[in-house]
Amino acid sequence: MAAVRVLVAPRLASALLPLSRYHRAPSQRAALHSSAPRPGARVALVLSGCGVYDGTEIHEASAILVHLSRGGAEVQIFAPDVPQMHVIDHTKGEPSERESRNVLAESARIARGKITSLAQLNAANHDAAIFPGGFGAAKNLSTFAVDGKDCKVNKEVERVLKEFHGAKKPIGLCCIAPVLAAKVIKGVEVTVGHEQEEGGKWPYAGTAEAIKALGAKHCVKGVTEAHVDQKNKVVTTPAFMCETALHHIHDGIGAMVKNVLELTGK
Amino acid sequence: MAAVRVLVAPRLASALLPLSRYHRAPSQRAALHSSAPRPGARVALVLSGCGVYDGTEIHEASAILVHLSRGGAEVQIFAPDVPQMHVIDHTKGEPSERESRNVLAESARIARGKITSLAQLNAANHDAAIFPGGFGAAKNLSTFAVDGKDCKVNKEVERVLKEFHGAKKPIGLCCIAPVLAAKVIKGVEVTVGHEQEEGGKWPYAGTAEAIKALGAKHCVKGVTEAHVDQKNKVVTTPAFMCETALHHIHDGIGAMVKNVLELTGK
Repeated sequence: MAAVRVLVAPRLASALLPLSRYHRAPSQRAALHSSAPRPGARVALVLSGCGVYDGTEIHEASAILVHLSRGGAEVQIFAPDVPQMHVIDHTKGEPSERESRNVLAESARIARGKITSLAQLNAANHDAAIFPGGFGAAKNLSTFAVDGKDCKVNKEVERVLKEFHGAKKPIGLCCIAPVLAAKVIKGVEVTVGHEQEEGGKWPYAGTAEAIKALGAKHCVKGVTEAHVDQKNKVVTTPAFMCETALHHIHDGIGAMVKNVLELTGK
Repeated sequence: MAAVRVLVAPRLASALLPLSRYHRAPSQRAALHSSAPRPGARVALVLSGCGVYDGTEIHEASAILVHLSRGGAEVQIFAPDVPQMHVIDHTKGEPSERESRNVLAESARIARGKITSLAQLNAANHDAAIFPGGFGAAKNLSTFAVDGKDCKVNKEVERVLKEFHGAKKPIGLCCIAPVLAAKVIKGVEVTVGHEQEEGGKWPYAGTAEAIKALGAKHCVKGVTEAHVDQKNKVVTTPAFMCETALHHIHDGIGAMVKNVLELTGK
């Protein structure tokens, strides 16, 4: 890489190296991309990898971060330091048998390196927690993809959900992630969208039945809406459970984030 | 995975398998997440991997797709079918020596599987092309990260840029990606933001000098602005070249997308 130093401005050279300035001493509570702390709610974002079929749904995570940024929140990103259930080749939709990846390391791609192991997430240090969807929530944060209503939830995820719920701090979830709340918080109200496929608009409509089998109440909502369980302070939106244009999903996530921030009282 | 079929609704079972319905017969011109064609400009999005340090900057790509969706564009996503320059462990900012990944396969994570090899991109079938940033543009789409002004551009990327430029169809680029236009389109005007670091707000300010060394004209712009080279129909915005809150980057990309769509005349 020495050529860079000769051929371009010195500052560019360091910029184009693997950005060590961002990584040497990561802040313990760093916003996604901000050099100074901002006021507002302190929100923990919990990821499950990077890519819809084996990790976090990328556009859901990004939409959450855009809306949190606009809402003046101070964000810290977490993920469990565990192996992924498997690696899906997203060009084929099939497992890549010889590969293994780590949930924390892949989630760091969405977090631009500013990420902390979920084991270090303490609800006392945050005002709210948000879980985007993607199959990572059903494969890496729980066993829902394999075990359905008999699923197990990752023990750190379960601890975090119980801590925030117990402290009466809001929890936001979207897409398939509401199954985590349905499993851990008894009787919670959540939405995963509509309960009928409606000609392909809601291809995962059957998930609503699984939500009920987990002991939760399912509430039908459109893709641009969020459902607020006021008692439990749990806010959910369908996101990619709906087959629609991306900006509708972006707006529904905006509604979820807005309600979460309002419930923090900040 | 058989347990899924027993324990949850059949529709969920198929939904939680690796979503083969999305992959068996990918549409040749599929929007990111839309079952029906929409009117409007036909835009080709060119990715370079998945993750800021060795591929496409995820939030830039997602913002482009949200704004294109809101603008009614019909999007098809492409990436070159080549190995990445290297794989960066994003938790450490260091190369992961034993790993190799393919640019097309990793880009498919952002595209939710709906992606086509860049070799098949023909400007005749699209009204505009957009290139997000991330170090993938300087590592996988060109050798700028290593060679600076003496960089080579991937031959398919060079062909695509020349085809759109020759057909007087607009090209949008953000972050570090404008170096591709600066190298291929002689005398083009682009922005990569400000030309001084300003106390860390513009950590890659030196890139402006490299743009000039490539024979292009650099135009200073703020992060929420886009620069439009009307003659060459090239639209650029600084995006993550600026150290700021994410929603400002999102809005600057919105300005870039809006100008690209206007230049298509659709």
